[in-house]
Amino acid sequence: MKHIAFSGRLVILGFGSIGQGVLPLILRHIDMPRERIHIITAEPRGREIAAEHGVRMTLAPLTRDNYRDLLLPELGAGDFLLNLSVDVSSVALIELCRGIGALYLDTCIEPWAGGYTDPSLTPSQRSNYALRESAIAFRGQPGPTAVLTHGANPGLVSHLLKEAMLILARDTGVQTDVPAGREAWALLAERLGIKAIHIAERDTQTANRPKQPGEFVNTWSIDGFVGEGCQPAELGWGTHEKALPADARRHDFGCDAAVYLLRPGASTRVRTWTPLAGPLHGFLITHNESISIADYFTVSENGAPRYRPTVHYAYHPCDDAVLSIHELAGRNWTMQPSQRLMMDEITHGIDELGVLLMGHARGAYWYGSRLSIEQARSLVPHNNATSLQVTAAVLAGMVWAIRHPDAGAVEADDLDHAEIMEVCRPYLGEVTGAYTDWTPLAGRGRLFPEDVDAEDPWQFRNVRVG
Amino acid sequence: MKHIAFSGRLVILGFGSIGQGVLPLILRHIDMPRERIHIITAEPRGREIAAEHGVRMTLAPLTRDNYRDLLLPELGAGDFLLNLSVDVSSVALIELCRGIGALYLDTCIEPWAGGYTDPSLTPSQRSNYALRESAIAFRGQPGPTAVLTHGANPGLVSHLLKEAMLILARDTGVQTDVPAGREAWALLAERLGIKAIHIAERDTQTANRPKQPGEFVNTWSIDGFVGEGCQPAELGWGTHEKALPADARRHDFGCDAAVYLLRPGASTRVRTWTPLAGPLHGFLITHNESISIADYFTVSENGAPRYRPTVHYAYHPCDDAVLSIHELAGRNWTMQPSQRLMMDEITHGIDELGVLLMGHARGAYWYGSRLSIEQARSLVPHNNATSLQVTAAVLAGMVWAIRHPDAGAVEADDLDHAEIMEVCRPYLGEVTGAYTDWTPLAGRGRLFPEDVDAEDPWQFRNVRVG
Ligand SMILES: NC(=O)c1ccc[n+]([C@@H]2O[C@H](COP(=O)([O-])OP(=O)(O)OC[C@H]3O[C@@H](n4cnc5c(N)ncnc54)[C@H](O)[C@@H]3O)[C@@H](O)[C@H]2O)c1
Ligand SMILES: NC(=O)c1ccc[n+]([C@@H]2O[C@H](COP(=O)([O-])OP(=O)(O)OC[C@H]3O[C@@H](n4cnc5c(N)ncnc54)[C@H](O)[C@@H]3O)[C@@H](O)[C@H]2O)c1
Repeated sequence: MKHIAFSGRLVILGFGSIGQGVLPLILRHIDMPRERIHIITAEPRGREIAAEHGVRMTLAPLTRDNYRDLLLPELGAGDFLLNLSVDVSSVALIELCRGIGALYLDTCIEPWAGGYTDPSLTPSQRSNYALRESAIAFRGQPGPTAVLTHGANPGLVSHLLKEAMLILARDTGVQTDVPAGREAWALLAERLGIKAIHIAERDTQTANRPKQPGEFVNTWSIDGFVGEGCQPAELGWGTHEKALPADARRHDFGCDAAVYLLRPGASTRVRTWTPLAGPLHGFLITHNESISIADYFTVSENGAPRYRPTVHYAYHPCDDAVLSIHELAGRNWTMQPSQRLMMDEITHGIDELGVLLMGHARGAYWYGSRLSIEQARSLVPHNNATSLQVTAAVLAGMVWAIRHPDAGAVEADDLDHAEIMEVCRPYLGEVTGAYTDWTPLAGRGRLFPEDVDAEDPWQFRNVRVG
Repeated sequence: MKHIAFSGRLVILGFGSIGQGVLPLILRHIDMPRERIHIITAEPRGREIAAEHGVRMTLAPLTRDNYRDLLLPELGAGDFLLNLSVDVSSVALIELCRGIGALYLDTCIEPWAGGYTDPSLTPSQRSNYALRESAIAFRGQPGPTAVLTHGANPGLVSHLLKEAMLILARDTGVQTDVPAGREAWALLAERLGIKAIHIAERDTQTANRPKQPGEFVNTWSIDGFVGEGCQPAELGWGTHEKALPADARRHDFGCDAAVYLLRPGASTRVRTWTPLAGPLHGFLITHNESISIADYFTVSENGAPRYRPTVHYAYHPCDDAVLSIHELAGRNWTMQPSQRLMMDEITHGIDELGVLLMGHARGAYWYGSRLSIEQARSLVPHNNATSLQVTAAVLAGMVWAIRHPDAGAVEADDLDHAEIMEVCRPYLGEVTGAYTDWTPLAGRGRLFPEDVDAEDPWQFRNVRVG
């Protein structure tokens, strides 16, 4: 079923796990001749897949110096740049697209190569907060639509969160229409009493061969994951929090909705919960949505925040990636000599990805997508469970951009969640919710005294693993 | 080749990975009729192996109430109790053997079931320090030989340490005879300038099937590992250490050679190094040798320690066990519903187990055993690489006890290392050493400021992962 017709040219920049996975979805749901699609990427990975689909692919790694020369012949007004690369500055690409009137979508605000771990930058400058500020600077200015960071997370989870809030309102007797606009959504979050939100993900996909020593294994971009894992841990900082952690810092610019910790997210563990896994430790990896959601759901009064939830990622990647991070930490964050993006060798497992809403009248509520590798494979070729949650959202974001071509720069939170979910939902497996009486204080302090706030379970101090 | 003849009866208590692995070694190297061996254990595990070797096996879980009734008919003067069980008090068994004149050996000082995690005990009371104090109370009293904690570690590593010290003396031009006795060994350690010693182990054994969610997987006793992993982290506390960590505590009784941290060892990571793995993070799991070695190598002056090395375990168990610990921590130390002790399903990997001597004239020196699963299997049936390093040392300790039947209670450090190594060495694969310029400061502080002591790399503060 075609959602929309597109008459422009489409450049897909980067053809890794997400690029390869989204191509069949684009061909299935966007009515456009495949001859008008052009993949530009840095390595031969995915060449057979491009060929299988009859789509042209060019090897041309973009740099600060050549990106304009390489892209300008391929893109003009009404065309589309789908940025699924790593190591290419998203902001540079957005500026280019704005200049020529082309549509744009990415799933991550990437810096130029090395930017995540450039020791000449301060941790604040290397943060996603800073990257986001540089991208949302375009917001509110007229121009062609640029959908910022619209994958699974960031992306889909912003829409799952709104669905979850409406369910929670219904279940806790909070009368509400579907809010129209940011202020109304933020007021609803405040009325619901949501103190903290985790992007709570447990990926159980495993392969028919184990990780080797010296190998980094993951179900999606290894460069992407290691890059963000080495950035400072970052979280949207809620108004209910009593004290900033000793190693937390505020930024001296921008929206001020988030703080960062003076340590890599890949070494920062947090307590969270998902329905299938139960209580678990995830990693507080920095993500754009931690900041954008906290910013979006801020209620201000006299110029100061009256209400804001604490928001962060609590990511349990696939087991081989947990081991890969452990090894990487032991190597003081020097990348392992070999990498493997798991795909065909996956034998089973589920990506359980959702939002955990905490501190409200019903305690905690998880809502999200539960997609197995078998489901993913039967739905769309060249995907695993992780990538399909991303590529479905990329597709939905593209459809939105084509339908609304003059929206300027927008984040997931700015889009109509129902419109997006309609396109994504067929690819998300079971979309489901579960209440739980779990709190980060459950089972604590049994063997050793622990530094907890027993009064308020939802303090970040209780969530963080010391 | 028989090392010695034994004319008594032998009771093997517990028949898990170590019991099953040591049986063929006993039959191969100790000259005794198999009819005089009797396995007493709590579950049917290993029944076919006992039958294959023509050794009698009885299912009879020992408890505080029944252990005398069950053991006294089986043991008398000149017999041998080989304790390879979990959940049975080693001290109770030692007392029983002393009472009747039987020889004794164990590989771990176990409390009665639940003792490791009894919340009614203080962390100090649940420590290995306390367990060791209760066992070494018998030391220096006449009586039948009781070899305390003589597996791989505790056990073998005490002898590897002495070999390593002699090599280090040779390589750094420190003139010495082989020291005779504790004081002389301690003085040599002081002359060598050894500040810290890690039991540095990297187990790379992996299996043909991955760990499942809710499953604890390890290459040796899961009960044993989880028990000690939930005890406080403990370490021998060296005289070069400038400051006690904020969460460290001294005991108010005993030898005072060690401190404990107010947290489980399985959640306490330390930086270490092995030749094959390079720099890595291990777990600071409490172990008897951390305390016994620190105690043994203490040089006192006017009743106060003038020299003592910091000593602790830095254990990177097999990858599936790292994942199992991560999951267990997420469950707040409530054991997973299923367990799997990896044996026949292991496809490859090596247990690299040794001592890392640090702070001397050559920086750091690792010395130990590097045994692959293939080597282990070809050497002795019913073993993996981990168990064979243990069972070879159990055999050597038994031979020592039979040769020296009236030594009373002894620890590995008290035994002649050359005599033990002679029996073990054929089963240890490659016994090898390597110098390294690695220090726990290598690669630190690149991305974030870190709390290090730049003056002295060998401070525990630098070793601990924050
Ligand atoms: N929002 C989400 O949910 C989500 C999920 C997964 C991935 N992502 C992001 O999507 C992006 C792609 O992820 P992936 O898993 O496909 O990554 P991948 O590592 O599999 O592929 C990256 C691609 O970028 C290409 N590339 C690298 N350098 C380039 C350059 N200089 N010029 C042009 N192309 C270059 C590579 O050749 C490769 O094709 C990453 O930024 C990642 O962080 C977002
Ligand atoms: N020093 C070392 O290097 C080293 C290495 C490995 C194991 N160990 C120790 O050796 C011991 C055995 O290890 P394993 O890997 O064989 O353990 P395992 O878990 O495989 O087996 C334990 C055995 O004890 C038996 N048992 C349990 N409760 C009992 C009871 N109440 N009465 C009698 N038997 C009982 C079980 O039935 C089983 O046969 C443990 O204490 C472990 O910590 C020491």
